Amino acid sequence: MPDSLMPNVPATLFADPREARRAIRAGRHTGWTANVAPGFVQGNLAILPADWAGEFLRYCQLNPKPCPIVGMSEPGDPFLPQLGQDLDIRSDVPSYRVFRDGVPEGDVPDIAHLWRDDLVAFVLGCSFSFEAALLDAGLPLRHIACGTGVPMYLTNVPTAPAGRFHGNLVVSMRPFKPADAVRAVQVTSRFPNVHGAPVHIGLPHLIGIDDIDQPWEGPATEVMADELPVFWACGVTPQAAIRMARPPFAITHTPGHMVVTDIRNAAVAAL
Amino acid sequence: MPDSLMPNVPATLFADPREARRAIRAGRHTGWTANVAPGFVQGNLAILPADWAGEFLRYCQLNPKPCPIVGMSEPGDPFLPQLGQDLDIRSDVPSYRVFRDGVPEGDVPDIAHLWRDDLVAFVLGCSFSFEAALLDAGLPLRHIACGTGVPMYLTNVPTAPAGRFHGNLVVSMRPFKPADAVRAVQVTSRFPNVHGAPVHIGLPHLIGIDDIDQPWEGPATEVMADELPVFWACGVTPQAAIRMARPPFAITHTPGHMVVTDIRNAAVAAL
Repeated sequence: MPDSLMPNVPATLFADPREARRAIRAGRHTGWTANVAPGFVQGNLAILPADWAGEFLRYCQLNPKPCPIVGMSEPGDPFLPQLGQDLDIRSDVPSYRVFRDGVPEGDVPDIAHLWRDDLVAFVLGCSFSFEAALLDAGLPLRHIACGTGVPMYLTNVPTAPAGRFHGNLVVSMRPFKPADAVRAVQVTSRFPNVHGAPVHIGLPHLIGIDDIDQPWEGPATEVMADELPVFWACGVTPQAAIRMARPPFAITHTPGHMVVTDIRNAAVAAL
Repeated sequence: MPDSLMPNVPATLFADPREARRAIRAGRHTGWTANVAPGFVQGNLAILPADWAGEFLRYCQLNPKPCPIVGMSEPGDPFLPQLGQDLDIRSDVPSYRVFRDGVPEGDVPDIAHLWRDDLVAFVLGCSFSFEAALLDAGLPLRHIACGTGVPMYLTNVPTAPAGRFHGNLVVSMRPFKPADAVRAVQVTSRFPNVHGAPVHIGLPHLIGIDDIDQPWEGPATEVMADELPVFWACGVTPQAAIRMARPPFAITHTPGHMVVTDIRNAAVAAL
């Protein structure tokens, strides 16, 4: 991801994702990861007990656009070698959010003391990868130009339920001029493992968004008169499903503090 | 192209494009080609004197989306072996339109008597190929379901001029639900040689279309409240440019009466 991606944060940190994870593990980097290890896939984190993990896996497989699985651990094993050399999911994320019965209990910088031999870690693709591809293609991203997060909306589109996991699709929105919207479909279609192509263009009321200026999460982003709102499936969808399913124990990343992997963005491009 | 493509015309004619051209040459098929040789590329025809052909070639190369060159002849040579076995452009199109000084003079079933040793034939990709791909992908096309032609609009978007050829882009419009519009971008992106991806989605006034119910050519097609109008560059663009350039002599096909080639639609897919 070029530095311009987040103009309000410091310049790129850690060209090498392994170096980044070592710094995170040592407590030397505790902040957002948007400017960390550009060009490498980052992921959403969800950790669940094994007796919930099977249903969650099924939920992700039924809903691949909001919940693209980049990797998952064996029960009790905190390492994900397929995602990164020596990647220890207990310590290598800058900030974790702990849930009891679906309710957030607080954020912690390390979960070694909370780790159990029945926990399964899921890493799901995130939009940073396709946003980098959009910027590389010369397409402007207003929320990045404005130095803010992306607006997210809870739609009226149900996800496919799996056991106790269910809920409506959450989408992120980026405005584009019509010809750029076509190009954005082409560019993001190359990245099916990180949300892929948009799920909706224009006509937000058709998916239950009555006021584009009132996001469900994140700051509002202006849609100019010559632009269409373009909507992508969002990785907040599985987090919302976890909150509603109310497992007795769960851990996610803190928003913006992602899992940094050794996988290059270019390596997850389909074409 | 499946029979369902044109429900108001008879069932598929001529599985083999060579057989179709033989029938056309013999005067046994004089009608539209929409139901002829499904699965094979059909093309728009433009025939110009050699002293105009160079500028027209440059115009097409500068404007590949409305003017995708599928093949062209040597000056004076009426055969296009790269497009079809024994394809004689003087006799193998069901109906031709003759222009003098940019003004249509009438339609004829054969141009052998008009052929000259300075004429150059251009065959340009047409939307039949990508429409077949859209239907194959399960996407509905309303103008086909209604058994009518596609609506076309003269935009305010200038093409790149080349010598005496210039003019604004003409687009065709097909309405889609938003998620289908995304899929339509993906499907037609595979066919850059037959107009490719849409040039515009939604917001027709931005490209100079003030009333979607008043096409420039072709019948109006209803856009439902839950649909977006999706616009593709149209092969009528070069015909409009020829009319405005007013070459002393030119021949095109009669609308709907296309050049039937031996090239499979699947063979012009980019991916």
